[in-house]
Amino acid sequence: MSKKVQFGVMLHGPGGHMNAWRSPDVASDASVNLEHYKNITLKSEAAGFSFVFVADGLFINDKSIPHFLSRFEPLTLLGALAPITSHIGLVGTVSTSYSEPFTIARQLASIDMMSGGRAGWNVVTSPLEGSAKNFSKDKHPEHSLRYDIADEHLAVVQGLWDSWEDDAFIRDKASGQYFDKDKMHELNYEGEFFKIAGPLNIERSPQGQPIIFQAGASPKGSAFASRNADAVFTNASTLEKAQATYADLRQQAADNGRNPDEIKVFPTLQPIVGKDHEEVRARYDAIKNLVTIEEALAYLGRYFDHHDFTQYDVDAPFPELGDIGKNSFRSTTDEIKRRAKENNLTLRQVAMEETTRESAFMGTYDEVADQIIEWIDNDGADGFVLTPHILGDFFHDFIDKVIPILVARGYYDISYEGQTLRDELGLPFKENRYVK
Amino acid sequence: MSKKVQFGVMLHGPGGHMNAWRSPDVASDASVNLEHYKNITLKSEAAGFSFVFVADGLFINDKSIPHFLSRFEPLTLLGALAPITSHIGLVGTVSTSYSEPFTIARQLASIDMMSGGRAGWNVVTSPLEGSAKNFSKDKHPEHSLRYDIADEHLAVVQGLWDSWEDDAFIRDKASGQYFDKDKMHELNYEGEFFKIAGPLNIERSPQGQPIIFQAGASPKGSAFASRNADAVFTNASTLEKAQATYADLRQQAADNGRNPDEIKVFPTLQPIVGKDHEEVRARYDAIKNLVTIEEALAYLGRYFDHHDFTQYDVDAPFPELGDIGKNSFRSTTDEIKRRAKENNLTLRQVAMEETTRESAFMGTYDEVADQIIEWIDNDGADGFVLTPHILGDFFHDFIDKVIPILVARGYYDISYEGQTLRDELGLPFKENRYVK
Repeated sequence: MSKKVQFGVMLHGPGGHMNAWRSPDVASDASVNLEHYKNITLKSEAAGFSFVFVADGLFINDKSIPHFLSRFEPLTLLGALAPITSHIGLVGTVSTSYSEPFTIARQLASIDMMSGGRAGWNVVTSPLEGSAKNFSKDKHPEHSLRYDIADEHLAVVQGLWDSWEDDAFIRDKASGQYFDKDKMHELNYEGEFFKIAGPLNIERSPQGQPIIFQAGASPKGSAFASRNADAVFTNASTLEKAQATYADLRQQAADNGRNPDEIKVFPTLQPIVGKDHEEVRARYDAIKNLVTIEEALAYLGRYFDHHDFTQYDVDAPFPELGDIGKNSFRSTTDEIKRRAKENNLTLRQVAMEETTRESAFMGTYDEVADQIIEWIDNDGADGFVLTPHILGDFFHDFIDKVIPILVARGYYDISYEGQTLRDELGLPFKENRYVK
Repeated sequence: MSKKVQFGVMLHGPGGHMNAWRSPDVASDASVNLEHYKNITLKSEAAGFSFVFVADGLFINDKSIPHFLSRFEPLTLLGALAPITSHIGLVGTVSTSYSEPFTIARQLASIDMMSGGRAGWNVVTSPLEGSAKNFSKDKHPEHSLRYDIADEHLAVVQGLWDSWEDDAFIRDKASGQYFDKDKMHELNYEGEFFKIAGPLNIERSPQGQPIIFQAGASPKGSAFASRNADAVFTNASTLEKAQATYADLRQQAADNGRNPDEIKVFPTLQPIVGKDHEEVRARYDAIKNLVTIEEALAYLGRYFDHHDFTQYDVDAPFPELGDIGKNSFRSTTDEIKRRAKENNLTLRQVAMEETTRESAFMGTYDEVADQIIEWIDNDGADGFVLTPHILGDFFHDFIDKVIPILVARGYYDISYEGQTLRDELGLPFKENRYVK
């Protein structure tokens, strides 16, 4: 029996492309259009996808990606998706740098209970410098400090999630006993950044605790993931890179005493598909043409603390930037700098390429299915997070045309495994730390 | 034409009574049972209720009201109710003492957008001392300071809600213009407690901004309400008290330069109804008998910073408590002390009465309808928040038996006014402060 591939899909309004809203395939207001989110989610569930995933950001200005300017907050959106779905996982992004662990523990546990055990938390530390200004802070914590805070934050949240043993609530109307006092646990956490007593005022769901997702690709980020994450989103442009990341995360997890099969690796997959190469190329060009060079420079600047790239000659070599971008999306900016240098790219080339990268998964339906199978068969991935440029035709085509090929080849199963997100991902129930 | 009465309903799991979960009328796990919340909400919407209202608390211990030990977080629950409803308002409680205004502004605006303009925020300052221990704070801010923080918090949230003028988002695919830069506004708030730049990353809903609800009955609380609230929950045991509060809030609002018709006053209404007096009394006794004296003492203690009342003789006069309870539910504890003294009550009498007060709205269906009409006709209320002891038969009976009487007498209209919560409550669209 072949290993099965699993899919999640990134819900970011009109799609992952910076000008996705301009595509004729989607509503221009998709980022605040609940019908759009419902449609994509229900189609994903009908196709047996393991989860939807909501990205987030805590700072905007007039240079932000258009559909980031106005979008739903992840946890309230996942709340809305809970009652209209029955099997698909609901994963939301929340920053450990700008949130209260007690509140986040409650909100995620609430989604987990409302959905019968289908919640997941994508733990981020917030890359954008400007976030501090929206949270009464003088300074955005630097990269390394953010991960120290994240370690404590997560320890608190997971500790609070175990406040009640699974059989703590008796609720016997006849005897009047509502709960067993011995199965309620205070956390009494005292760390450098947080001091939290507990107990949490909500019980555990059928999966024990929400899943932990993580996407940080820096050394600090992947170390954090290998210690804490049940699932990791990665970025890989080739199978070789995917294999290296896959092996590294599993090795680090094993080094931390974990079962490496309990850290699931999901590279992103940007499908650019069509019935033949001509259609694929035409579709790619159509996306690329949604962007002007001015927009591409602003988009690039977003990774570099909103650095103003219009000051340079766009057709000269990519400029020297020194430390700019070091405290933000570090792994992305390092990669951009490296690639520009290696390939002697101009600023124009870098900027235009960055808005619309040629995906590793670009080809006919059969070719893309082949690639997926190749990655799965060769330890490149456990599954993929779809990040379609446009949450329109590419998404629908992937489900309608590529998924059936994977099913026919025995690599994909549309039905769900069990009732919870942990069941579906092949992860064990999360035992309560206090159970003897 | 007679003035119409409006209703909201308090969703607290099995009901408002401390031992509501024991009633045969409700699921014992109602506080974490999404089906229960859906059923009550859909029935309320079918009956034309103006809003559901979710209460909250940020601290529990083993003496808390049983169904408070494990319950849904309000904003994620309201998210879940948004897609399954189409007209009813969605009001949630969030504390200004323990939340980040940027996050709260986003989450409420998100619910407001997802529901097409039906969100409301019940602004509370958190009465429970223990809350501090769940939020890394050494000390719970005292009553007056909490209201100073609340003033700033609300100013920030409402400022962020105006970040985008209503026509800021153009989203013209042909021209590529997504928004009008001149209609985006930074807040740049700098106060004593908060320093928030903005803009918020979500646009305004069809009602402009979520409604502000407030329930504080202390002088600081009602002053806050008269400055800021669109709707106020009050507690009144008699029409005379209701009239005094009604007149006072409207007068204070007028003194603040507001139109007194734009502050809606909703006393709570605990229906204890039946077909005749015998059934009403039997139903009241059934609720009262859900509680033991030990439970009643613990319940009473909750209002007094979890003071241990078991140390006193329960049949001696109510004890002198000095300052205990002053920094918590102040208006409630003052009232309890006053009533005990005036009526020479024993501790047992106070405790048992407190768990199951005889409601002002106790009687046959016709009698309760008469009372409602009397309060509406005599400037005692604009509407009521139903707080049934049990969210079971009393609730269903009120809708099935009392509402038709009010309709027949011309005092209630089941249809909704307009699409938004502001429309329904007769409040004007909230204009954006930056519009010239």
